[in-house]
Amino acid sequence: MLELEKIITPTLLLDESKTRQHIHTMVEKAQKSSIRLRPHFKTHQSAAIGEWFREAGVNCITCSSLQMAAYFASHGWNDILVAFPVNIREIALINQLAATIHLGLLVESAYSVQFLDTNLKSSVDIWIKIDSGARRTGITVTNASLVADICQIIQRSSFMHLRGILTHAGQTYHSASPSHVVTSYQASVDLMTQLRDKLEMQGIHNLEISVGDTPGCVLANDLGKVDEIRPGNFVFFDAMQAYIGSCTADDISVAVACPIVAIHPEFEKVIIYGGAIHLSSESFLLGDQKVYGLPTLLTAEGWSNPIPGGYVRSLSQEHGIVHVHYEACNSLNPGDLLGIIPVHSCITVSCLKKYLTLEGEILETMNC
Amino acid sequence: MLELEKIITPTLLLDESKTRQHIHTMVEKAQKSSIRLRPHFKTHQSAAIGEWFREAGVNCITCSSLQMAAYFASHGWNDILVAFPVNIREIALINQLAATIHLGLLVESAYSVQFLDTNLKSSVDIWIKIDSGARRTGITVTNASLVADICQIIQRSSFMHLRGILTHAGQTYHSASPSHVVTSYQASVDLMTQLRDKLEMQGIHNLEISVGDTPGCVLANDLGKVDEIRPGNFVFFDAMQAYIGSCTADDISVAVACPIVAIHPEFEKVIIYGGAIHLSSESFLLGDQKVYGLPTLLTAEGWSNPIPGGYVRSLSQEHGIVHVHYEACNSLNPGDLLGIIPVHSCITVSCLKKYLTLEGEILETMNC
Repeated sequence: MLELEKIITPTLLLDESKTRQHIHTMVEKAQKSSIRLRPHFKTHQSAAIGEWFREAGVNCITCSSLQMAAYFASHGWNDILVAFPVNIREIALINQLAATIHLGLLVESAYSVQFLDTNLKSSVDIWIKIDSGARRTGITVTNASLVADICQIIQRSSFMHLRGILTHAGQTYHSASPSHVVTSYQASVDLMTQLRDKLEMQGIHNLEISVGDTPGCVLANDLGKVDEIRPGNFVFFDAMQAYIGSCTADDISVAVACPIVAIHPEFEKVIIYGGAIHLSSESFLLGDQKVYGLPTLLTAEGWSNPIPGGYVRSLSQEHGIVHVHYEACNSLNPGDLLGIIPVHSCITVSCLKKYLTLEGEILETMNC
Repeated sequence: MLELEKIITPTLLLDESKTRQHIHTMVEKAQKSSIRLRPHFKTHQSAAIGEWFREAGVNCITCSSLQMAAYFASHGWNDILVAFPVNIREIALINQLAATIHLGLLVESAYSVQFLDTNLKSSVDIWIKIDSGARRTGITVTNASLVADICQIIQRSSFMHLRGILTHAGQTYHSASPSHVVTSYQASVDLMTQLRDKLEMQGIHNLEISVGDTPGCVLANDLGKVDEIRPGNFVFFDAMQAYIGSCTADDISVAVACPIVAIHPEFEKVIIYGGAIHLSSESFLLGDQKVYGLPTLLTAEGWSNPIPGGYVRSLSQEHGIVHVHYEACNSLNPGDLLGIIPVHSCITVSCLKKYLTLEGEILETMNC
């Protein structure tokens, strides 16, 4: 039961029951497909929520930084892949972690691989980062010869164990419809499979394929011929995922409780204490309108579905400007709370650093 | 002297000498105009940098939250205005601070003022928030009758001392040119002066006028008939201010040192460890291109001017994607550092929490 009167400043609310259900659904989906689930923990960043995964049978995880890996290692996780191109400046922490846990690293250049070859002191798994269409980073999926060259350096090394090829099909986030997400996901998996086949023909055997984006992993009924999936955001979802169609608004299991500090019914806007430093400046375009979050009403049981027609239309450092229809404005007062569904829950978690569950429990993250 | 080899992860660099010069310039400008400078400390958020202001003769400050006010109060500041519409849920902290320092609050509704009237236990200064064109929040500057009503409630109260009217001319951030900034600033000051005159005619005397936006306060030679200015960002400036024309790129006194983790010359892009959780997702539009930061080269003495034609073109949670011309890509390696000039230095400071000066000193903020 939420004690709303105890909420004083912007507070990240968490619905544990929905969150556990999301974990259960994804675990079950991976099991049915006989695919390893290595969930990305950059979304929740919390040892306590990590335990909910462990209770559901998860024993290997993905992190987005070595600091995050060190945090979860200190909470008993010992099979961790850092799915971010290796930052060779962190070699000391890499060696420290590799000495104590089963650590996976991501590479995408001969340069970094050679550096690791020279400087590693313990064994690590190596995954090669492939760009299968997201156009963020990674070796272009059609460039099998470069991948093969890097594989060969890894295979000659003492401490590097070549594990497989890895991609993040981030293009699914730009899909026009859920069916387009599935098509994009499948195209990405097909390209990865073709790359594995080409490498196989060049004598590089037993490569695994790791993929992972929430829209694809949620929406594709058939996850394809992959060995591992690494979705992260599904644990909470957010307004962006609802916009894409990976979830409904009702599925979203986090919202930020924000005190109302001013109301301007004549401009159909409500000003909240809750700005870029709380919600983050992530947005998506709904028609011509940038949307920075969706307002809901709070009760002791949690939050409502989004207020019809409402959206966070801009953010300053501490202010949020929320568009709400005239009548709804008139039903609110300064000091009331709005619950804001964030656009990108992972970054909002980084901003707010801890959760308040609907049962009134505080859960910390690595940033506390 | 920067020891670049000691920079391992994204690190906020600070040029103390330039920062002190910016403080000196603004202090001198305010003194010449006989206007009180109440600098906004939400940009630097650091007790150590606060001392540089104190050494320059500043003795009153602006904060954007009560938490920030409590932090600076604990570091010896005793005249603090919280320039954010009062969050009445924080009445306990308000009373605690008001009992120990000279605290100023901002109001914009009769509702909040009546709440304060009932619940305050010590004296506070009250400023009324006016919207002079920014269209974010505040009472519309032409609505003198509403302002007068609120003034009268305040004047009848035991613990509220009516201090004046306050605006933030945030519209200067959308100006097409420096001369347009000055016109906007002056228009805002003129409207505030007219409002004060109208209130004077209604028997509300001795109201002060407080204004404060960095572009206006920097670019206007004549600050106008105001009593107080509250600029904040000028202490460091940033890419947005250089874009507006409030400063040159060389004036900017913060940059984020980011390790390079991948280079793709064929796509003219460099991938850095430095994403939305480090730089923030703030951007501005340069033609059709969203810009999230400007890349520079680092040396032991600091950073270069922005790399010609370079810009941060997108950010993920931990990744930054930097556009850099083909030739420049080829001169870089994974493990090298880029210095990224942030788009909005205030929010980047919130993300990174501490500074490394060019002399190698660590300065903490309230978020450490």
